[in-house]
Parts: sequence; C-alpha cells; structure tokens
Amino acid sequence: MQRFALIGAGFIGTVHAANLAAHPDVDFRFVFDVDAARSEALASRHGAAAARDLDEAFDPALVEAVFIASSTDTHSGNLRRAADAGIAALVEKPIDLDYARAAELVAHVERSGIPAMVDFNRRFDRDHAELRRIVASGELGDVSIIQMSSRGPVLPPLDYLKVSGGQMRDHTVHFFDLARWLTGLDPVEVSVLGSALADPRVAEIGDVDTSVATLRLPGDGLVQIDSVRATGYGYDERIEVLGSRGLAESGRMRTGNVTTYLGDRVSSEGLHPGWFERVQPTYASALDEFVAALETGSPITATLADGLKAQAIAEAATRSLQSGRTEKITYS
Amino acid sequence: MQRFALIGAGFIGTVHAANLAAHPDVDFRFVFDVDAARSEALASRHGAAAARDLDEAFDPALVEAVFIASSTDTHSGNLRRAADAGIAALVEKPIDLDYARAAELVAHVERSGIPAMVDFNRRFDRDHAELRRIVASGELGDVSIIQMSSRGPVLPPLDYLKVSGGQMRDHTVHFFDLARWLTGLDPVEVSVLGSALADPRVAEIGDVDTSVATLRLPGDGLVQIDSVRATGYGYDERIEVLGSRGLAESGRMRTGNVTTYLGDRVSSEGLHPGWFERVQPTYASALDEFVAALETGSPITATLADGLKAQAIAEAATRSLQSGRTEKITYS
Amino acid sequence: MQRFALIGAGFIGTVHAANLAAHPDVDFRFVFDVDAARSEALASRHGAAAARDLDEAFDPALVEAVFIASSTDTHSGNLRRAADAGIAALVEKPIDLDYARAAELVAHVERSGIPAMVDFNRRFDRDHAELRRIVASGELGDVSIIQMSSRGPVLPPLDYLKVSGGQMRDHTVHFFDLARWLTGLDPVEVSVLGSALADPRVAEIGDVDTSVATLRLPGDGLVQIDSVRATGYGYDERIEVLGSRGLAESGRMRTGNVTTYLGDRVSSEGLHPGWFERVQPTYASALDEFVAALETGSPITATLADGLKAQAIAEAATRSLQSGRTEKITYS
Amino acid sequence: MQRFALIGAGFIGTVHAANLAAHPDVDFRFVFDVDAARSEALASRHGAAAARDLDEAFDPALVEAVFIASSTDTHSGNLRRAADAGIAALVEKPIDLDYARAAELVAHVERSGIPAMVDFNRRFDRDHAELRRIVASGELGDVSIIQMSSRGPVLPPLDYLKVSGGQMRDHTVHFFDLARWLTGLDPVEVSVLGSALADPRVAEIGDVDTSVATLRLPGDGLVQIDSVRATGYGYDERIEVLGSRGLAESGRMRTGNVTTYLGDRVSSEGLHPGWFERVQPTYASALDEFVAALETGSPITATLADGLKAQAIAEAATRSLQSGRTEKITYS
Repeated sequence: MQRFALIGAGFIGTVHAANLAAHPDVDFRFVFDVDAARSEALASRHGAAAARDLDEAFDPALVEAVFIASSTDTHSGNLRRAADAGIAALVEKPIDLDYARAAELVAHVERSGIPAMVDFNRRFDRDHAELRRIVASGELGDVSIIQMSSRGPVLPPLDYLKVSGGQMRDHTVHFFDLARWLTGLDPVEVSVLGSALADPRVAEIGDVDTSVATLRLPGDGLVQIDSVRATGYGYDERIEVLGSRGLAESGRMRTGNVTTYLGDRVSSEGLHPGWFERVQPTYASALDEFVAALETGSPITATLADGLKAQAIAEAATRSLQSGRTEKITYS
Repeated sequence: MQRFALIGAGFIGTVHAANLAAHPDVDFRFVFDVDAARSEALASRHGAAAARDLDEAFDPALVEAVFIASSTDTHSGNLRRAADAGIAALVEKPIDLDYARAAELVAHVERSGIPAMVDFNRRFDRDHAELRRIVASGELGDVSIIQMSSRGPVLPPLDYLKVSGGQMRDHTVHFFDLARWLTGLDPVEVSVLGSALADPRVAEIGDVDTSVATLRLPGDGLVQIDSVRATGYGYDERIEVLGSRGLAESGRMRTGNVTTYLGDRVSSEGLHPGWFERVQPTYASALDEFVAALETGSPITATLADGLKAQAIAEAATRSLQSGRTEKITYS
Repeated sequence: MQRFALIGAGFIGTVHAANLAAHPDVDFRFVFDVDAARSEALASRHGAAAARDLDEAFDPALVEAVFIASSTDTHSGNLRRAADAGIAALVEKPIDLDYARAAELVAHVERSGIPAMVDFNRRFDRDHAELRRIVASGELGDVSIIQMSSRGPVLPPLDYLKVSGGQMRDHTVHFFDLARWLTGLDPVEVSVLGSALADPRVAEIGDVDTSVATLRLPGDGLVQIDSVRATGYGYDERIEVLGSRGLAESGRMRTGNVTTYLGDRVSSEGLHPGWFERVQPTYASALDEFVAALETGSPITATLADGLKAQAIAEAATRSLQSGRTEKITYS
Repeated sequence: MQRFALIGAGFIGTVHAANLAAHPDVDFRFVFDVDAARSEALASRHGAAAARDLDEAFDPALVEAVFIASSTDTHSGNLRRAADAGIAALVEKPIDLDYARAAELVAHVERSGIPAMVDFNRRFDRDHAELRRIVASGELGDVSIIQMSSRGPVLPPLDYLKVSGGQMRDHTVHFFDLARWLTGLDPVEVSVLGSALADPRVAEIGDVDTSVATLRLPGDGLVQIDSVRATGYGYDERIEVLGSRGLAESGRMRTGNVTTYLGDRVSSEGLHPGWFERVQPTYASALDEFVAALETGSPITATLADGLKAQAIAEAATRSLQSGRTEKITYS
C-alpha cells in the first residue's frame, strides 16, 4: 500500500484524485492546492486530508509518493522537492517549459534515485498499445511512415495558450513521445508548417492552432503529425503505422455502435465530445504502472528522460515553425 | 459465336439486350415481343432485327439460343418451344407458376437434351460467390444457421402481385435457391410467418409483403430468410453463414465510400436505391456462364432442376403461411 | 444509503458483490450462500459480513434490500421471503421455472407492495438503449421486422442445461424481453425451429442449442431471434429494427479498434470472448436503476410483470418447438 | 461522332484503346506507335487501323482528335503537332518534364485555340468527386487540413524512374492537382521530406520513394500528402478534408464486402492489388468529359493550365527536397 499526496486540485487533479481513491494499492492521504478551499473540497470527497502546506504533502514520514498535477510553472519546483525529500513522483508534463532547466532537473532527479514517471497517459491507450505490440512483433516490417492526428475540439483559453509554450510544446509533444514509444527510435530532424485558423489572436501571441509536423527517424522512416486545436466534430485521434510489409491503424474511436439507415444515408454516433472523454481510461492505467513499480519494482516505462526527449523534439519543432527550415533535433 | 434471339422487350428484356449486344461471343440476331413497336425499338438500338414471329425467333437455322424474358405466363410455352426446336434456352424464373406443370416441363426439356439454364442471377453476385467459396472451403465448419435478408424498396404494382404467385414464389424463391447453392443441401421443412404491412390490399389478394421463413436443412442446420417488399432506405440484401467454427457475411453493399463527420454524427452514403442497381452486374455474369457453356461445354450451374427445387420450397412455404405449421418440402 | 444483502456467492453473485461495493448509495452489509466458506470469502473481500442465515439476510431491521442471485430453484422462495419481510428485492431471472407458480408469486409480491425488479440486464446495454430511443422517437416509422442474434460462445455444462428449463426459458427469454421492451408490445404468437448441433447429448435431454424463433406482434410486425449456444468466434449479439421508414442496428461489438492491412487481407480484433465480457457493464447500470428507485422513487422499468411476460413467451415458444406449429402466447 | 487517333500503344495506350472503342460517340480510327507491330496489334483488336506515320495520325481531314499516350519525352512534340494541325488533344501528364518548355508550349497551344485536356484521371474518381461536392457545398466550413495518401504497391523499374523526373513530378503531381481541384486554390509554399526506403538504388539516382509533402494554401489551410512507391498490402489511396465545421473522407476502397469472424479475429478482403485496378474506371470518365466537350461544347475541367500549375508545385517540391527548406511556389 502506497501513501500518496496529490499536488493540484484543478480539473486534472480532480481526475487523478478519483483514480487515487479507487486504486486498491493506494492510500490516498493528502491533497495540496494553492486554493485551500478547493484542496479541502477535493480531499474530503475522497476521504483524504487537505495538506497544511507543501512540507506536509512532501513529508517522507507521511507519504511514499506524490502526484504532481499543479500548474505547469510549478512542476519543476515540486519535482525537485520530491527528489530532495526522497519521495517517488509522478509528474504531469512538461517537467519545465525551459528545456535547459528541465534537463538539469532530470539529471538531478536521476541522481537522487527516486522512482519518477512522467504522465504520458496516451501510451496507456488500449488501442495505441495494441498498435505498438504489432509494430514490435515485426509483422509490418520496417517502419516507413507513421501518421498521427490529434484534433480538437475546442481552442483552450487564450490565457492558457499564452503560458503553454506553444502548440508544439503543449499539444504535439504527446505525439512526439508516441513516435518514440511506437518505434523505439529518437527522431533526428523535424519540419513544421503551422497556421492560426481558429482564432486570429492565436497568431498575435505567436502561436499556431493548426499544424503539420514531419519528423525523420534514424533509418529514414518519416513521421507525420497533424495537430488541430478546434474542430466541429468532437475530438479526433488516430495513428497509422506503415511498414515495408503492411499497415496497422489505431482508428478513430466512436462513442457507440448504433447505425441508422434512412433514405439514402447511413449514419451513426460520432466521436467523443472532447479529448478528455477519449483518453479518460488512460489516466488510471498510467497510475497503475506507477503504483505497480512502487509496489513490485516493475519498470516505469515513461521516464523523465522520455519526457525530456519529447521536449527536445518540441524545441526543434518550434524552431522550425519560425525558420521555415528542417531543423536537427538535439538531445542533451 | 452464338446467335441469340431475345424473347421479351420489357424492363428486364432491355437489360438482357444490352448484355447480349456487349458480349464478345454473342451474335445478337432477334428480338421478339408481343408489342411489335417495342420489339423493333429494342432490336434497332442494338443492331438486331425484330423477329417477324416466334417461328423466326426459334428457327434453329437462324439461332443457336434463345433468352426467354417474356411475361411469366409465357415462360413455359417458350421453353417448350425451344426444347422442341432443339435450341438452347436461358429462361427467367419461374419455369411455370404451377409446380406440377413446371415439373412435367423440366422432365420434357431434359429429355430433349438442349442446354438450358434458369436465370438465378444472384448466384453470380461477386460477394455471395466469395461467401460460397468460404463455406465450401470448410473453414467455417458445419453450417448452423444461414441468415438472409432481401428488403425493398418499393411494393410492385398490385396488378403484378395478383399474378406473381405470392411473395414466396416470386420474391423469396431467389433466396431458397441461394440456400441450396450455398450449402449443396436440399432443405427438408419450412415454416413461415407473414404480414401485409406495406399496403392492406396485399392482404386482400391473399398475399404478404413482409415475411420470415425458417428452413431446416438435412443435418439440422437452419436457414432464416426475411423478405420485405417496401423499405424507406433503398434495397437491402445481406447473407450471413454461421458455422460450427466461425461466421462469414456478405454484407450490405454501400453505393460509395465517402464519410462525413459533423457535430456528433458520422454519416455516409447509403444503399442502392433499388434491387436492380444492387444486382445489375449479376445479369451479365449469368449470361456469361450460359454462353461459355454453349461455346466450350463448361457446366451450367443453375439448371432447370435447380429452378424446380427452389419452386418446391416456395410451394411448401406458401402452404406454411396458410397452415401455421412447419411443412415438409417435397421435391418431385 | 440503502443497506443490501446479497443472496448467492457464485459467479454472478461475485459480479453483483463488486457492483454493490462500488455503488455510492449502497451500504453492502451481508452475503448469504449455502456454502458458508464461499459466503465468507466474498463478504470479506468487500467489507461485508457473511450472514449467519437467511433470517439475518432478510431482517428488515438490518437491510432495506436483497439482491437474489442464488440458484434458479431458490429464486421464488427468496423472493417470497423478501415480500413477506417487506424488503425490496432485485432478482435474477427466472422468477420460477414453473410459469403458474411464477404468476402466483408475482401477484403475491405485487400485493405486498415491496419495490421489486427482475435483472433483465440487457435492457441496460448502452447501444440497445440507444436503439430503443430511436424506435421510440418514431423516425423508423412502424416496426416491420426486428432481428436479434445471441450466439455463443460455449455450451453450458450439461448439468446446468438439465435444470435450465430449455433454451427458450433460459437463453432466448432475454430477447423475448427485449422484443417487448423495444416495441412496447406484447407478442401474440410464436413459431420456433430448433436443433441440437453443438452436442448430441443436448437432444437426449430434450433441449436444443441452436434455434430460430419468430414472433408476431400486435399490428403484424414480426420478430426473428436466433439463439446459438456455441460458436467459434466469441460471443455475438446484435439487434436490428426495420421500420416502415428506415432501419436501425445495434451492431456487433468489437473488442478493439486496431486494424491491420497485410497482403490482400484486412483484419482486426474480433468479438468478446464470452457473453459476460460483452454485457458486463449492464449489471452495474441495472443495479443503479434499482438503487435510484429506492432512493428517489424513480420508476423500476424491469418489473416482475415484465419477467412474467417474457416467461409466458418462452412457454409458448417451448410448446412450438414440440408441436411444429405457430403457438398463441397467453399472458396470465 | 468524333474520329480519334491514339498515339502510343503501351500499357496505358491499351487501356485508352479499349475506352475509345467502347465510347458511343467515338469513331476510333488510328493507332500510332513507334513499334509498328504493337500498333498494328492494338488497332486490329479494336477495328481501327495502324497509322502509317504521325502525319496520317494527325491529319485533320481524317481525325478530329488525338489521344496522346506515348512516352513522356514525346508528349510535348505530339501536343505541339496537334495544335499546329488544329486537332483537339487529350494528353497524358506531364506536358513536358522541363517546366519552362511546358509553360511555353501551353501558351502556344492556348493561342492555337484547339480543345485540349490533360488526363488528370483521379479527378474523375467517383468518391473523390463526391468529396469535392461536399467541400464545395460549404458544409465543412473553411478548409483547415487536407490529408492525402497514395501508396504502392510496387516500385516502378529503375529505368523508368531515371527518366520520370522524380517522385514529385511523376507521382505526387496527381495529388498536387487534386489539392487545387478540391479547394479551388493555388498552394503558395511547400515543404517535403523524403527517403529511399524501397531500394537503395533510388537514392543513387537522386530520387526518393517515400515522402511527405506539406503545402500551404492561400488563407493558411495546410495540405499533407504522403507518397509511397512500395507497400505490402496493395494500392492504398485516401483523401480526408478537415474544415472548420467538420471532416469528410474519401476512404480506402476495399475489393469486396465479405467479412469472416474466426476465433478472436475479424477479417475481410483488402485493397486493390495495384493502382491501376483502383483507378481504372476513372479513365473512361475522363475520356467522356473530353468527348462531351468536343460534341457539345461542355467545359473541359482539367486544362493544360491545370497541368502546368500542378507541375509548378512539383518543381517547388523538388527544390524543397534538396534544400531542406519550405519553398515558395511560382506559377508562370
């Protein structure tokens, strides 16, 4: 049984709180949030306590692990605190929006020896994992092209976008990670074209909301990722892996299985209304891997080093958006 | 090269005329129809001649074969004439709506030795034929249940229905034949429930337009056929074969491959507007088998005996509709 | 908060125990099973107690409700006990395999005034419920034909089959209920053909394992149900409703969404390995309706009267299997 | 009735010959090929004559139109000859592999006033045309991203590749044209990453066989095209248009509609074995537009100017492959 503190009681903290409370091997002790009322409310809903302060939440006498789901700018401070306290940490991406600081911190945390995991939850999508199994089995041959889409449905608030680091670091980074995870390879270069189509103010803050990134893998396979912030048909995510011998696809996921035939049209239920509904089950599975690692010593597959590498790709992608060039990706 | 006369210049005769004209091994000589103007028009469109009379159309000095697509009540007379003239005959079903007369005629034609074929065109549907290949391969194991649907889209005219022999003999008979063709077995009993839902006048003439027939095969496999005269979504035909080891399905056929995602719905192009659009390619393939048999001696797989057996099932099915009992099927 | 006792700690009792334990408005108090060790084990897994005896489990001072998931022959006794104790009861079907006794008991329970529900869990299938919503909306027009399949995957043990009442009462009864639930109509007659294909011993005990039932609805719509005990491709359930204006289908449910293209074949993940995996989520939803009814007075939609009517259809269907006739359905 | 000469009796010339022979408004007069025996054989199969020389084939007293399907390096010479003779011309792409020469020639032909069409046959794909209709209807809103795939199945011979102009000019150019045709917009810039994965000799001749091109449209919509020369699963072509309000897809086309369920897998018939089988019907439809234009003055929608613009995109794409930069597209 692992005692946990949860740092952050916002939307995603609320999701994690429910999963922590339901996990048979977790003793959910504390919630900490800068908003004490919010912290109190979430804690009491799940039989946990609101931590008095961060010292209590990170007290190694009281907890074995923290789940860091606080605002992006506090990830690195909280992760460092866990390392220094010798407490295991599961952290939302990004580690730090500044790549150099993130790299320094990852090295520091690795030296500390604490178990640490970045919450790349999409790796725990059941269909994506089956796709990865097929790639690894070799039945598709060598990877030629991977195609990924992540679309919609609603532009995040401008205030969020301003501090998000831009679409590559905030949105596409999940798929940079999936590209590495699916192939076991570190992409070597990247080229991106992007546009602000959903809202002209996105361009004003120097960001894009619609982009196509192309990566080159060692061995010359290519990866194509389109990332779209706003759609009119819900949240659309799919991955396709083309190999020298065949193709496999983790397809669009429908919300239901009922089809109607009326007149000359066939129609059925569409996609999930939002990204959260689509990926919701992955959060519990990601937590499960982390808890199992603490309980049994099984491996953590989404390491901080993975988080850093995905970020390195996002850095080069961001440069490419500005330079109009294919950019080399440098991993520290 | 086989010289052909076509008997009948109605809707289906027009279809056959185009196929005769396009077939590389057919010399399309004559069209005969009781309506001379219609006969003339169809013949001239395809470079054939309107036959002066049936004697010319069935003259063995002028043609090797006749395609009998005249009105139902004239099928048997024309088929007998072909047998007596020693001319090959491809005949639309039914041979004769009166089963006893049909049986006598089939025996007569078989004694004559002419090549003869009944136009069970659905046997030449590309998907159904692939389904049959799978059944024959044994990969499904022994057949447990076959399920067939044939639905819509529009009730034929009442005047046609009055002389059609009823839904079992006119409509479902195609699927009685497919049941035999798919399994190589002669069903032993049949039970039918039926209703007149599309138009109350169907009941007044003692017919049904919506029915579910269940057949028992030797070995106790079951066959389920629903036949519906009118739908609101075009023409719907599908077949599913469940065996002891697996299932295979010749699915609903869509008219196109374009899908739209709008709001929370996915929609795509529906079914064919009518049965004819669905089965159109099968007519040319059926003709092709007949011509190949004449040219090369390859087998005719849809024999008059097959036509008679399907009719025997339709007879028992018609009795079951009236008796409310499972009826034995008697093949003469 | 409703205090519950669970009667029966076999396979399905174990399923219900987990749902009772997870339900926020249930205080899961007792488990009773004739096998005390089994009872003890299940209770302790979920923080409940093993009831000393039935008196404790049905003590109105200790519980508000019982969930009757004991062996079939004890359903009626336990249900009567609940009625007499004034405790709400959620009972697995059948109420009593003997229809007359079931009818008498339902009348008795109704007089008692306790909230009572039969666990027709398939009504709570998300896709089937969406199908029902579409039918009720009127967009399909009047119902012409309903087609349902329930297939496989594995023949239950012979010892179970011997006391099951036969395929109509044990298996097809769920779909007799769905026919009523989808249409709001009570079928008037039924005709069944059946076979023992999976194991010849099924015939020896007077049962079938493969059957096709056809029902007539008031208004002359037809319902077709094929029920198959053993398949080679997992558990296959689908429902299709054809109306005068269109068709709607609650389709086969796949276990995943990954497709591979290799050579000239496309392949993907198949059906659920068993019926349980397919319907698992429905048990919690059914329980939820029952608990909500107790908590808020919201209606119970799967009443004992519904259970009795489905059983009445199964009685007539069983007679039809033997008589080879279409049988009238008599509701008491 | 339009009298035609066909120039070129190779693979694609043979396809066009059959369509010319079958077209009701075409009088198929001549075939010319540098290989006289080949010319003779093809002509005699379709009741045409082998032209003695190009003078006969382009004699305006003998023909109204030529179909130029000769080798790539002779397209421009033959097109110029048609213009100078005042004969209508339907020409396979490219007009001339040298863009400047092609531009000069198009201007020359336009001055001549002959009806001229480039054979962009994919515009006549039934599904792609339906997709275009949907885009034009406005129901998708403004175009955000178009995604196109064209894959496989077999690397063309090295000798062909050497003179093909490279993948952008030979293969992807069809999809550059479709991007313009679908949107009515001329892309402004393009970025391409490519690899030689199918055969290392492709790299030796300075070409790629696997590429991802990204185009920017006026208004900042993006177009993503992956082009792959060799696959292990037949020929795969699909197009997806994402707009501000929804998505539409012209999906992968299957060769049949039969599905099998065996064990835990579902499988069905795959894609077409080659690109030709996939696009075959489009050639007749393209010819039909051209003939209709000659007969009735209806518009030619795939003009030489369209051919030139697609080529301009291919020029910029080829530059981008070498420069690693996003390249501006210049239309002359």
